[in-house]
Amino acid sequence: MGANTSLSLQILLNRGAAHLIENFGSDELKATYCERMYSGEWTGTMCLTEAGAGSDLGEIKTSAVKQADGSYLLSGEKIFITSGNHDLTPNIIHAVLARTPGAPAGAKGLSLFVVPKIRVTTDGSLGDPNDVVCAGIEHKLGIHGSPTCSLVFGNSGACQGFLLGQEGQGISLMFQMMNAARYEVGIQGLSIAAAAQQAALAYSRERLQGRSFSNKKADAPQSPIVQHPEVRRSLLLQASYVQAMRALVSYTGWCMDMAHVTKGEEHDRWQGLVELFTPVCKAWCSDWGFRVTEWALQTFGGYGYTMDYPAEQYLRDCKIASIYEGTNGIQALDLVGRKLRMQEGRPVKHLLGLVAEAAQSLASDPILASSAQQLASAAKAMGTVLTELPARENGMMLTVLNAVPMLDMLGHMVAGHLLLQQALVAKAKLAALLQERGVAAEDAAAVRALLTESPEAAFYHNKIQVAIHFAHRGLPLVAAQAVALRAGETAPMDAVL
Amino acid sequence: MGANTSLSLQILLNRGAAHLIENFGSDELKATYCERMYSGEWTGTMCLTEAGAGSDLGEIKTSAVKQADGSYLLSGEKIFITSGNHDLTPNIIHAVLARTPGAPAGAKGLSLFVVPKIRVTTDGSLGDPNDVVCAGIEHKLGIHGSPTCSLVFGNSGACQGFLLGQEGQGISLMFQMMNAARYEVGIQGLSIAAAAQQAALAYSRERLQGRSFSNKKADAPQSPIVQHPEVRRSLLLQASYVQAMRALVSYTGWCMDMAHVTKGEEHDRWQGLVELFTPVCKAWCSDWGFRVTEWALQTFGGYGYTMDYPAEQYLRDCKIASIYEGTNGIQALDLVGRKLRMQEGRPVKHLLGLVAEAAQSLASDPILASSAQQLASAAKAMGTVLTELPARENGMMLTVLNAVPMLDMLGHMVAGHLLLQQALVAKAKLAALLQERGVAAEDAAAVRALLTESPEAAFYHNKIQVAIHFAHRGLPLVAAQAVALRAGETAPMDAVL
Repeated sequence: MGANTSLSLQILLNRGAAHLIENFGSDELKATYCERMYSGEWTGTMCLTEAGAGSDLGEIKTSAVKQADGSYLLSGEKIFITSGNHDLTPNIIHAVLARTPGAPAGAKGLSLFVVPKIRVTTDGSLGDPNDVVCAGIEHKLGIHGSPTCSLVFGNSGACQGFLLGQEGQGISLMFQMMNAARYEVGIQGLSIAAAAQQAALAYSRERLQGRSFSNKKADAPQSPIVQHPEVRRSLLLQASYVQAMRALVSYTGWCMDMAHVTKGEEHDRWQGLVELFTPVCKAWCSDWGFRVTEWALQTFGGYGYTMDYPAEQYLRDCKIASIYEGTNGIQALDLVGRKLRMQEGRPVKHLLGLVAEAAQSLASDPILASSAQQLASAAKAMGTVLTELPARENGMMLTVLNAVPMLDMLGHMVAGHLLLQQALVAKAKLAALLQERGVAAEDAAAVRALLTESPEAAFYHNKIQVAIHFAHRGLPLVAAQAVALRAGETAPMDAVL
Repeated sequence: MGANTSLSLQILLNRGAAHLIENFGSDELKATYCERMYSGEWTGTMCLTEAGAGSDLGEIKTSAVKQADGSYLLSGEKIFITSGNHDLTPNIIHAVLARTPGAPAGAKGLSLFVVPKIRVTTDGSLGDPNDVVCAGIEHKLGIHGSPTCSLVFGNSGACQGFLLGQEGQGISLMFQMMNAARYEVGIQGLSIAAAAQQAALAYSRERLQGRSFSNKKADAPQSPIVQHPEVRRSLLLQASYVQAMRALVSYTGWCMDMAHVTKGEEHDRWQGLVELFTPVCKAWCSDWGFRVTEWALQTFGGYGYTMDYPAEQYLRDCKIASIYEGTNGIQALDLVGRKLRMQEGRPVKHLLGLVAEAAQSLASDPILASSAQQLASAAKAMGTVLTELPARENGMMLTVLNAVPMLDMLGHMVAGHLLLQQALVAKAKLAALLQERGVAAEDAAAVRALLTESPEAAFYHNKIQVAIHFAHRGLPLVAAQAVALRAGETAPMDAVL
């Protein structure tokens, strides 16, 4: 899985960089690079970050000077370049942000270039090295399967690059790749968390320790720890957040598809949700994915702290997801600064309406009513904050100050909503299964017997339990976080730091 | 600091093991071992865990058979023994739990033995090795300065040990060491978190990135990130939890001292608080200490993920604290199963009364009223849960199921209370400073100037801001966690796991 994390990252970069060339490169560039990158024969990178320009891309200093033949000579240093150098493939194709002479200061002066590690001759064969040197490899907390490099471009004045799109379009082109990458980093958070949760569950079924809650006598046999209530609480919480994240990224993927096949107002509505959810997928799934790996490690007890079990690696690998492709702080600022306000706020209003309506429709459901009440409270808290904050005199500062909690609140609300929708489906499926087997829903023993014997029945039953658990353990965090926002608490601005 | 974590652990073990010998060993054992252990000439260990007996000490299988000379021959395997073997000191003294022949099953059949790595002759000099072999060293997530060993005792039938106390007293004697150790592990969580928070704060003052909130023009100079509201929020949250943890362990230490110098009912009251707070110090400070290291790492951005900066090591080192000396799940079960119910529940009722009274007395404070309201809500939620849960038909199961959230709620409530008490002191101190300098409290510019120039004024001002921040960001988690408990949500027991 550690290798898988690094591999999925590499695939993402290959496809992202190739995509940029396919969409914005000349026919010659496309013919030279795309097929070999999509196939994995050559790998790709994204070269944005410099030592003084991480979150702050406007400070990029790498330069690109146009030559008589239309190509550019690049010069500068990039850091934190994933798979910036390695021997796995004969060539590496860099997508590099750089500044042309006389371009305006800041991000709008940047252009995007294709820079191969090895120059490609006109017949497509590999020629001379292209003056791209790996100056170092980072020693990192995790993702050890992925070399994170410092690259020096043009140290000998011979680093050739090819413009994508027009000069000055660098940031906007790069963001086409960044948005896909941000969504996919959310999936990384989810995936590592899911692997950790499954490992913890499997371990809890094998590991004998203590006596079961129902038979505590000293001479009773040891129980698998999955029988202990406190362990079950943690396991179901892990499963709840994993399924919550999966629901969020799946629904966002569906919104992407719908935006792709619709037009006009309908397209705008789906696209609005896609843009709203992109930073939430990235940040919420990486933050809570990390938390799940922490809980999963704890399930292993002392063994979780050792390298004999996979938990500690999941924890280390997962941490990068909250940092790269724009830190989670940057994602939150994107959400509150752009996404909540785009289309005059219609996407988020549309969403709040959907959620409130769904909560209302479940208000008298015999099983889900209490959960629906939690969803309604969360939607109300979220809506109140979105209305109240901008109306305040210091509303802009309060919004920026509280960007991270606001993203967390939105993530919880949407995920809680989606899990309850899944529970509705699961309820009907489970009822049909019971009927099919001739089991009365009131006959607790017979239902339990069916759950034990039928994985399908257990799956739907657990879907309902997960939704209930998340509604009561996750959703109350929305109103809890609203407290400080509604109180206008500004201690971080008032403190001397 | 990584080395410091390992070193503090070693000191704790030396003192703990020596303390056991001093209190429960024969005069000969005391003369032979204590001075050389307290001085650090020899180091000590605690040998409890076996492969099948971690949280479940009753399963310990290591045996001890009495010999004609009164000593015992030990035989068995222990794992996860901190500093179980090393070359730093000429001898290592193990405190070993083992079972005597014919002893009852479970924990009450265990006895405690002193087992030196090298036998000590009658004149105090080192003799032959004592048949204690290190079979392996764990590869761990962190605390790499501390060798965690598997030890085999008596593989050649020649491992000599000496009984401490009486046969069958092993667990109760060991718990004298464990309680001190649990408190000290809480201090480890606090200490690593404090180091991480200070490193993050220092970095945020140096690292230039982006423009300040008040001057965002592209040609404005880059700002240190400490000026960005979102970074300030995280920094103050880190400081709030660090100070909350410090308040909790300091107050617990004070209760220990008071219990030491008082008698009768007064002693029982202080001792009740000590016992109530011990598992909370251990678990709350290790869980939130880890969270602080996560936030601190994030402050460093991409650099936080590299080994060039200390954040990733703090994160790795801190994780052990939630696991050893009894996992945090075990701590929570100790809290709800024993500590909340001891002395007919008087300690926790006494505490709830103190907190409610303090909240009430601040209800109309011009600066702290809103924070006091949060404290009152937290105390109310805590009190309600403590009253309601045991009264339910499935109260015992609900209590065990929710042991971890209940410990977390109690930790937040106590810490929030203590921070507000500190804020009250700080308010008076700050007011005195303002008066001394002739600054009117209403003159915002003059106050700000004083805060900039006087570290003392800034210290007291920040104490108040930290209390306010924690009250609005931490305390609402108490009521949020009460939701599931009050709803009697039992999905983890109902799910098929």
